Amino acid sequence: MSLNSIFQYFVPKDKKFFPLFEQAGSNLIDMAKLLKESVHTSDLQLRKNNSKLLEDLEHKGDNLTHQIHLELGKNFITPFDREDIHALASSLDDVADFIHGASNRMELYKVTEPSEAMKEISSLILEATEHVAKALFELKDLKNIRNITDSCVRINSVENKADYIFDKAVAELFEYEKDAINLIKNKEVLSAMEDATDKCEDVANVLESILVKNA
Amino acid sequence: MSLNSIFQYFVPKDKKFFPLFEQAGSNLIDMAKLLKESVHTSDLQLRKNNSKLLEDLEHKGDNLTHQIHLELGKNFITPFDREDIHALASSLDDVADFIHGASNRMELYKVTEPSEAMKEISSLILEATEHVAKALFELKDLKNIRNITDSCVRINSVENKADYIFDKAVAELFEYEKDAINLIKNKEVLSAMEDATDKCEDVANVLESILVKNA
Amino acid sequence: MSLNSIFQYFVPKDKKFFPLFEQAGSNLIDMAKLLKESVHTSDLQLRKNNSKLLEDLEHKGDNLTHQIHLELGKNFITPFDREDIHALASSLDDVADFIHGASNRMELYKVTEPSEAMKEISSLILEATEHVAKALFELKDLKNIRNITDSCVRINSVENKADYIFDKAVAELFEYEKDAINLIKNKEVLSAMEDATDKCEDVANVLESILVKNA
Repeated sequence: MSLNSIFQYFVPKDKKFFPLFEQAGSNLIDMAKLLKESVHTSDLQLRKNNSKLLEDLEHKGDNLTHQIHLELGKNFITPFDREDIHALASSLDDVADFIHGASNRMELYKVTEPSEAMKEISSLILEATEHVAKALFELKDLKNIRNITDSCVRINSVENKADYIFDKAVAELFEYEKDAINLIKNKEVLSAMEDATDKCEDVANVLESILVKNA
Repeated sequence: MSLNSIFQYFVPKDKKFFPLFEQAGSNLIDMAKLLKESVHTSDLQLRKNNSKLLEDLEHKGDNLTHQIHLELGKNFITPFDREDIHALASSLDDVADFIHGASNRMELYKVTEPSEAMKEISSLILEATEHVAKALFELKDLKNIRNITDSCVRINSVENKADYIFDKAVAELFEYEKDAINLIKNKEVLSAMEDATDKCEDVANVLESILVKNA
Repeated sequence: MSLNSIFQYFVPKDKKFFPLFEQAGSNLIDMAKLLKESVHTSDLQLRKNNSKLLEDLEHKGDNLTHQIHLELGKNFITPFDREDIHALASSLDDVADFIHGASNRMELYKVTEPSEAMKEISSLILEATEHVAKALFELKDLKNIRNITDSCVRINSVENKADYIFDKAVAELFEYEKDAINLIKNKEVLSAMEDATDKCEDVANVLESILVKNA
C-alpha cells in the first residue's frame, strides 16, 4: 500500500490531474482522426490542411503535458504516485509525437499514394487512441477497474495487429520494391505509424501498473 | 543509506523477486543461443524454427516482466529500491526485444547469408547474456559484490567489442555494397544485434547502481 | 514542498553534485566546438583529429555521469530530488552521445563534404550547449531562477530551428538525391545532429521540472 493510497481517504477528489488527462485523451483521438483521413483521402489539399492541424494539436498536447508537470511541482499530494503521473503524461506525449511524425513524414517525403498497410494501421491507431481515452476517462473513479483493464487488453490486441501488418508490409517492400528511395520512404512512414501503436501500448502498461498499486 | 537498506535487517530473505530475475537471466541465454545458431547455420528450416522459438521465449520474457511488476504492486517492502527493480526488469525486457528483433529482421528481410560481422556479434550477445545471468544469480546474496562487479566489467568489454565490429562492418557496407537495398537490410540486422549488446550494458549500469546503494 | 526542499535549510551548500554538473556542461561545449569545426573545415586531417578528440571527451562525459551516480549512491541528502539528478545526468550523457555519434557517422560513412544544413545545425548544437552549460552553472544558486528559465526558453528555440532545417534538408534529399546510398548517409548524419538538439531540449525539460519543485 503506497503513501498515496493511505492519503487518498483524506484528500478531496482530485480536480487537477484528471481533467488534464481527459483532455490529453481526446486530443489523441482528434489527432488520430486527422491522420486516418489524410491517409484515406486522395485530396492533397485536405491532406496539407490536416498536416497543419496536426501540428497545432501536437502543440496543444505539449501544453497539456507541461501543465501536468506544473501541477506535479505544485502539489504535494497527488491522486496516484508522482512517478506514475509523470510516466503517464510522457507516454501520452509520445503517442502524439508519433502520430504527428507519421503525417509529417508523408508530407516531407511526398508519399502521395499511401499504401493499403498505411490505411489499415491508421485505422488501428484511431482505435487504440479511443481505448486510451476511455481508460483515462475511467481513471478518476478507480471503482471501474474492470473497464480500464478491458481497454488495456484491447490496446494490446490492436498493437499486435499493427505489428503484424507492419512486418508483412516491410517484408513485401523488401521483396517487391526495387527503388531503394521509395522503399525508405514507405518503410519510414509505416514505422512512425507502428511506433504510434507501440506508444499506446506503453500507455496501457503505465495504466496497468497504476491499477495494481491502487487496487 | 536507503530505507530499504534499513529494512533489510528485519525482512526475511526475498523469495519473490530474485527467482523471477534468475528466470529472466536464463531466458536471455536461451534466446541468445538460438540467435547464434540461426546466424551460424545454413539450414533455412532450422533458422525458421529458431525464429518461432525466439518469439515464444520473448513472450515468456514479457510474462516474467509482468510478474515482477505485479509483485512490485503487491509488496511494500522490496529487496532493493522499487525504481531499481523496475529499471532492471525493463532493461532485461529490452535485451529480449532486440535479440528477437534481430532474428525477426533476418526472416522478414530474407537475409539468407549472414555476414561475418553478424556471426561475431551474435557470439558476443551470447557472451553478454551469460554475464548478465551470472550477475542476476549473485544478486540475491549481496556478499558477492565482487562477482557482480566482475560480470559488469565483462559486459562492458563485450559491448565495446560489438561496437567496434558494428562500426567497421557499417563502414565496409558503405564502401563496398553498391546495392542500396542490400545495404539497408544488412545495416538494420547488424544494428538490432548491436542494440542487444547496448541493452546488456544498460543492465550492467542498473546493477552497478544497485550495488553502490546497498553496499 | 518536497522532502529535499525542507532539508535544504539544514544542509550545507552542496559541494559534490554542482561541480560535476558544471564540468559536464563545459564538456558539452568543448564537444560541440569540435563538431562544428569538423563540419566547417575541408581539412580532412583536422577532422580525423577532432573525431579522436570527441571520442576522448565522450569518455570524459561518461566518467562524469558515473561519478554523479556514485555520489547519488553515497549521499542520503541531495540538493534536489534524486530522480531529477539522475534524469539530468542521463540527459547530459545523451547529448554527448549524439554529438559524438554525428562525428562518428561522418567518419564511418566518409561524408567528405558536409552539407549546408549540417553546417547550420552544428552551429545550433554549439549554441544549445552554451545555454545548457549556463543553466547548469546557475543551478547551484536557485535565486537566479529567471536566468535558468531564460536559458531553457533559448534551448527550445534553438531546437525548433534545428528541427526546421532538418525537415527541409530531408525533404530536399528525397526530392533531389537520386543515389539512395548518399541519401542514407546524409540523412543519418543530419539525424544524429538533430537528435543532439532534441537531447538539449530534454535537458531543458528536466531543468524546468527542478525549478518548479524547488521554487
